[in-house]
Amino acid sequence: PSINNHEAKKRLGHVTVVVVGGTGDLARKYLWQGFFQLYADQIGKGHTFSFYGGGLSPTEKGTPLLFGILKELACPPELSAERCTLVKDQFLHLSKYHQLKTTEDYEKLSQQIKQQLGQEGMVEAGRLFYLSVPAFAYADIAEKINNTCRPPSDAWLRVVLEKPFGHDLYSAQALDKKLSDQLKEKEMYRIDHYLGKKVVSKILPFRKENKKLLDPIWNKHHIERIEIVLKETLDAKGRIQFYDQYGVIRDVLQNHLTEVMTLMLMNLPANLSNSMEILQNKLNFLASLQHVDNSNAVVGQYQAYNGEVQEELNKTKDYFSLTPTFAGVVIHVDNAQYEGIPIFMTSGKALDERVSYARVLFKNDVFCIQDPNNVQCKSKQIIFYLGHGNLQYPAILISKNLFKPELVSSGDWKEVTEYKDVNVLGLPLSDYYIQSPVTPREAYCELISHVFFGRKDSFISAEGLLASWAFWTPLLEGLSRVFPRVYPGGEANGNLLNFQLQGHQVAFSHEAVVNIINPGAKDNFQVMQGKYRSSEMVSAWAQELVERLASDLLLAAEEAIREEGQFHLALSGGSSPVALLRALALNLYTFPWRNTHIWQVDERCVPHTETGSNFRSIHDLLLQHIRIPYFNIHPMPVHLTQRLCVEEDGGPALYEKEINKHVNGSSFHYILLGVGQDGHTASLFQDTKLENDEERLVILTESPIKPHQRMSLTFTAINRARRVGVLIMGKSKHELVSQLSRIKGESSKYPITKVQPKTGTLIWYIDYDALLG
Amino acid sequence: PSINNHEAKKRLGHVTVVVVGGTGDLARKYLWQGFFQLYADQIGKGHTFSFYGGGLSPTEKGTPLLFGILKELACPPELSAERCTLVKDQFLHLSKYHQLKTTEDYEKLSQQIKQQLGQEGMVEAGRLFYLSVPAFAYADIAEKINNTCRPPSDAWLRVVLEKPFGHDLYSAQALDKKLSDQLKEKEMYRIDHYLGKKVVSKILPFRKENKKLLDPIWNKHHIERIEIVLKETLDAKGRIQFYDQYGVIRDVLQNHLTEVMTLMLMNLPANLSNSMEILQNKLNFLASLQHVDNSNAVVGQYQAYNGEVQEELNKTKDYFSLTPTFAGVVIHVDNAQYEGIPIFMTSGKALDERVSYARVLFKNDVFCIQDPNNVQCKSKQIIFYLGHGNLQYPAILISKNLFKPELVSSGDWKEVTEYKDVNVLGLPLSDYYIQSPVTPREAYCELISHVFFGRKDSFISAEGLLASWAFWTPLLEGLSRVFPRVYPGGEANGNLLNFQLQGHQVAFSHEAVVNIINPGAKDNFQVMQGKYRSSEMVSAWAQELVERLASDLLLAAEEAIREEGQFHLALSGGSSPVALLRALALNLYTFPWRNTHIWQVDERCVPHTETGSNFRSIHDLLLQHIRIPYFNIHPMPVHLTQRLCVEEDGGPALYEKEINKHVNGSSFHYILLGVGQDGHTASLFQDTKLENDEERLVILTESPIKPHQRMSLTFTAINRARRVGVLIMGKSKHELVSQLSRIKGESSKYPITKVQPKTGTLIWYIDYDALLG
Repeated sequence: PSINNHEAKKRLGHVTVVVVGGTGDLARKYLWQGFFQLYADQIGKGHTFSFYGGGLSPTEKGTPLLFGILKELACPPELSAERCTLVKDQFLHLSKYHQLKTTEDYEKLSQQIKQQLGQEGMVEAGRLFYLSVPAFAYADIAEKINNTCRPPSDAWLRVVLEKPFGHDLYSAQALDKKLSDQLKEKEMYRIDHYLGKKVVSKILPFRKENKKLLDPIWNKHHIERIEIVLKETLDAKGRIQFYDQYGVIRDVLQNHLTEVMTLMLMNLPANLSNSMEILQNKLNFLASLQHVDNSNAVVGQYQAYNGEVQEELNKTKDYFSLTPTFAGVVIHVDNAQYEGIPIFMTSGKALDERVSYARVLFKNDVFCIQDPNNVQCKSKQIIFYLGHGNLQYPAILISKNLFKPELVSSGDWKEVTEYKDVNVLGLPLSDYYIQSPVTPREAYCELISHVFFGRKDSFISAEGLLASWAFWTPLLEGLSRVFPRVYPGGEANGNLLNFQLQGHQVAFSHEAVVNIINPGAKDNFQVMQGKYRSSEMVSAWAQELVERLASDLLLAAEEAIREEGQFHLALSGGSSPVALLRALALNLYTFPWRNTHIWQVDERCVPHTETGSNFRSIHDLLLQHIRIPYFNIHPMPVHLTQRLCVEEDGGPALYEKEINKHVNGSSFHYILLGVGQDGHTASLFQDTKLENDEERLVILTESPIKPHQRMSLTFTAINRARRVGVLIMGKSKHELVSQLSRIKGESSKYPITKVQPKTGTLIWYIDYDALLG
Repeated sequence: PSINNHEAKKRLGHVTVVVVGGTGDLARKYLWQGFFQLYADQIGKGHTFSFYGGGLSPTEKGTPLLFGILKELACPPELSAERCTLVKDQFLHLSKYHQLKTTEDYEKLSQQIKQQLGQEGMVEAGRLFYLSVPAFAYADIAEKINNTCRPPSDAWLRVVLEKPFGHDLYSAQALDKKLSDQLKEKEMYRIDHYLGKKVVSKILPFRKENKKLLDPIWNKHHIERIEIVLKETLDAKGRIQFYDQYGVIRDVLQNHLTEVMTLMLMNLPANLSNSMEILQNKLNFLASLQHVDNSNAVVGQYQAYNGEVQEELNKTKDYFSLTPTFAGVVIHVDNAQYEGIPIFMTSGKALDERVSYARVLFKNDVFCIQDPNNVQCKSKQIIFYLGHGNLQYPAILISKNLFKPELVSSGDWKEVTEYKDVNVLGLPLSDYYIQSPVTPREAYCELISHVFFGRKDSFISAEGLLASWAFWTPLLEGLSRVFPRVYPGGEANGNLLNFQLQGHQVAFSHEAVVNIINPGAKDNFQVMQGKYRSSEMVSAWAQELVERLASDLLLAAEEAIREEGQFHLALSGGSSPVALLRALALNLYTFPWRNTHIWQVDERCVPHTETGSNFRSIHDLLLQHIRIPYFNIHPMPVHLTQRLCVEEDGGPALYEKEINKHVNGSSFHYILLGVGQDGHTASLFQDTKLENDEERLVILTESPIKPHQRMSLTFTAINRARRVGVLIMGKSKHELVSQLSRIKGESSKYPITKVQPKTGTLIWYIDYDALLG
């Protein structure tokens, strides 16, 4: 096609590209090359272009800098040398340096664009601003663009941004707020250069093309584990100023590896070109991730790092940075398709090799009667190989004993059938079917073309970004106080960084050889038993205490079931039982839920589906994780005939009836209570009138705190139980615990003192924070 | 201790041992050796003994036969040659042959025992009858023992029986009934010689000794798979008369391998000496197994078998036996601890090697940053190795990268630290910790001692036996019509018998090379679409039909959730939806249950917990398998205030209110209906009066069949739905399907004809049996 195709030019209009920070490092290395490629691809296809490199320097200083960069641009491989010279000349001709510092500079730029368009009689198609500047400058530049540089309303504005997009959820929200005051979401193109990698952008199409083969195996029944890995040999030297504020999780896991995970596990959209559907599925996936905290991660720091920090940040010799340069995290998805599959996500600097991949390892589902070492009997995997390592090129690898993948390609993917003699992740290369991109383009090149075509699904949406930060922020906060394990760097790391699952948690596999401090000090505290208010007391640090209570509950359940075939457990609301319910849900596999009935000690008069409902919290923390018959669940009837705790509905009498029907002698096997700072227990408060209720098991009460209306078991019901456990945790309860220990017998001021099982036993579970302050 | 210890003799009393069938094969090979060992062990410890070999032959013929056997008895290794001669002389002196044919024979035996005891002034401790005779003779002998040979009431009677204990659940029940008319359960000792194997009887103690280390990993989160294997090289030649009636599942899986599985996975009893607790835990475990049918098993028959059958059973050349000589079964446990773990159970004759083991293979839970081929990074296993194979001796093997096991032994187990250069199940022997019995006794020897000590937990209880048969019988019935895959036998089997998981099902991994018939004929039928009663119809064989309906439901759910965020599904009772509910529960991992609400189309007026309840069946088939919020489940309120469908309780109005509250325009997204043979649908019958109910969504109705009282959606509610699916399956519906196809429009005779959604769509799902008859 001829360069001067006037017809087409008129048809599609003019595009202005502005690289803000156009003479910086990133622009030099990747961006201009990308725009040159874009120009070469689009030339003669109907658009006209002009390119501006913007910078803080004045024109006379900036211009030679820019042209220095542009002259060095490489020719795209598909162009002949002759044609390339022609195209490059033209590209240089269309490019200008423009100082972009003040609002006036931006105004001038906008005028210049208008003028030029007017002179040449061209229609404006759109303006593309690429902000290749530090993130702190985004808001300011966005404001200037918004105020001075918007194109006419029928042309598009696209502003490209690079990470970091904030530092945690709150800063990301703040940044988003500032930017969205100036730019519409559809105008912002947030780059994660992983989304520009051919293999990454092939994940969804690959899943779609092979849907029939993948559907039966892409689930918890067939997937053994997933690994998402970026190993680097480089260190952070020279970049500490930036790196030390971020660390490996913010630098790599929160963005690149999370994107890869999402593409691998999100529900496959019905339409791969529907950005909205893709976004919605991504958000749904991120929302289904299980909460991750310190117990799900291990962190390390290469030995030389701290010295580099001291030097580059001018710190004294006693300064220690807690920034991790290595992290291993295990993530679980909380849905029926993937629950239980461990997703190992890991990245680090100064490791033994440079490699990046994501793989799905399938369970070995074959039983081999003879010769189990046969390749057909080995496990199977699919690898999205991003580069480096033994293979050295990006590819998708599928074990041959899994299936032969479809190759539905638009010509830009090929099947590789030449096998280098290397081993890739456990198998010789010849054991894989291999698909590889025909022309592996630079990610930036790819993404610049996607910006041009408005393919929003190759970029990070505000919602996606915040969802990812919402997932990672609790872990980042927790880790801010954790000493990373120090590792020597390179091959010398040996086994030091291997980590392993413990339930849904994770820990280093081997004792540290080198460590800054000894974090085990707390572990020396044992569970302690004693007396409290003349009853038995168990005390320990919170976690051990909860584990002990859970195991006592298990013993009580087993005993009751042995004797009566059923275990009747009544649970309180409030905050104390949260950790216990979690422990019961996730760790006690042998709990006999099938024969356990769950009752409520008290309930707020709100619908059960609302978050304030005690039942809702029991449901979300416990019930939805266990296999308990529907019939064994006994929510308090606070919401009869669509009304909340109305006297005439007789809710308490109804619950009483249900108790009498199921619970032998209305004597629960176990009642778990908490205590409020004011000494109330269940929903029995200081002012609760109990005189006429001697015989009642369930009553309506009034709380001093909203929501005021409550339903509660009475002391009559509580004191009939075989076992009562009172769980008290946290420093805020220390004063109460001290006061109660000084009071003998009942006190009308503290309802909890009226808990005195007639024939059953009372045990206090008090953590060290509450006991010792 | 002296042989003539009169004091001790008087103290503990006299024991009479009677081996019925005392000159048969089993007695010759194992039993007398066991009793000799028992005598040698017990001599001088307070009991006196006499031994009778009973048989059908007269005394003069039987006596030399018996003494021929007894003279050949080997000396127990712990006795010196000199002492052995002494003990053996004494043993022969105490042993007699006694004809046992008629009731009189048994009477005579009893008199003889009494006489002898009287003469020597001894007290009787007990009588032990070992029935080493074909099972058909058990009932008769038991009757004779009961009528004539019972010891005085203060002495025990123990009768030892050998498998087969029946042929399936019904015959086992019948046999049990006959025996229990004569003998008490505590008097019967049913032998499974696997329970006499040292390694098998060590399973529970091993789990107990290593409880702390095993507890965290003995669950679905850590176990990848379990294999329970008995491979034989021998064939069935010469035993076809017996074998062809039983086959490998009855011969090995139902008893030996099931016992091993049970010991590995039952809840660990608190007290290992408490037979009752052990039995109860075994029964609980067996009750938690998922139903197994043809889809969970593969069967084979070695090539020469059928010829052997023709010969030994005098059959013609066109006779084919379907008896399997090889079986691979996958079993799943339906509880929170083990759910999802595949248990591969397999056994066969004429295989490539002789070996028997049970192993637990753990998931690889380590992420190795460097060198993933390191042994620490490999998966881990615990093997209960019963013998033969590469190892050649019984042992418990634990991968060294798992843990070092406790060896809490009474001196009869040792640690093996000499490593032969062999590979055992994927690892060199040196990679295991090995524990082995010090003196590996014959299983019979061990069991005879357990009979003597009354250790009932080493034997099969009636309840355990029936529970095992209850588990296996449906599969055996299903397989009775399946052609086994023919395999050549020995090493030549190659990959032919490998089998693999497909969900919870199992199939051979490779196409058969040799096969008797082609069972794929039916598969050629495709799903067919057409019109029925002027609405759309889908038809197929039952399984494909159900899959198609499930996938249509998924599409409807996804669409509704995309548009409204929720999917409201109303399900019918009855038998048709069973297969559908199962498919939804087990196969459709991606079904968006979190946003789905389950409603009932109709319900019987019985409590929801009863088996006749539609809700109960929806619960058991579907709800208990999926993760759906409690709040999204809407059972019909047939049981308000503990009363069933009482008019004044206003159940229908309440359900109507709930529908109006949750379901937009009270228009369900999907209503699934069935049809009765009489043409009724939901619980709307020919005689149901609907005149005054035009506006009602829910009503009480009367069924002609018990239970008469029902609650049902009305046609008003049904015809408001966006989609209605009518599922009709089975030959019994063929006539109705034909009749309906001939009726245009409504017919008061067939309520189903009133299903005519106003704006929604109606689809008929009719299987080929119902459509074609």
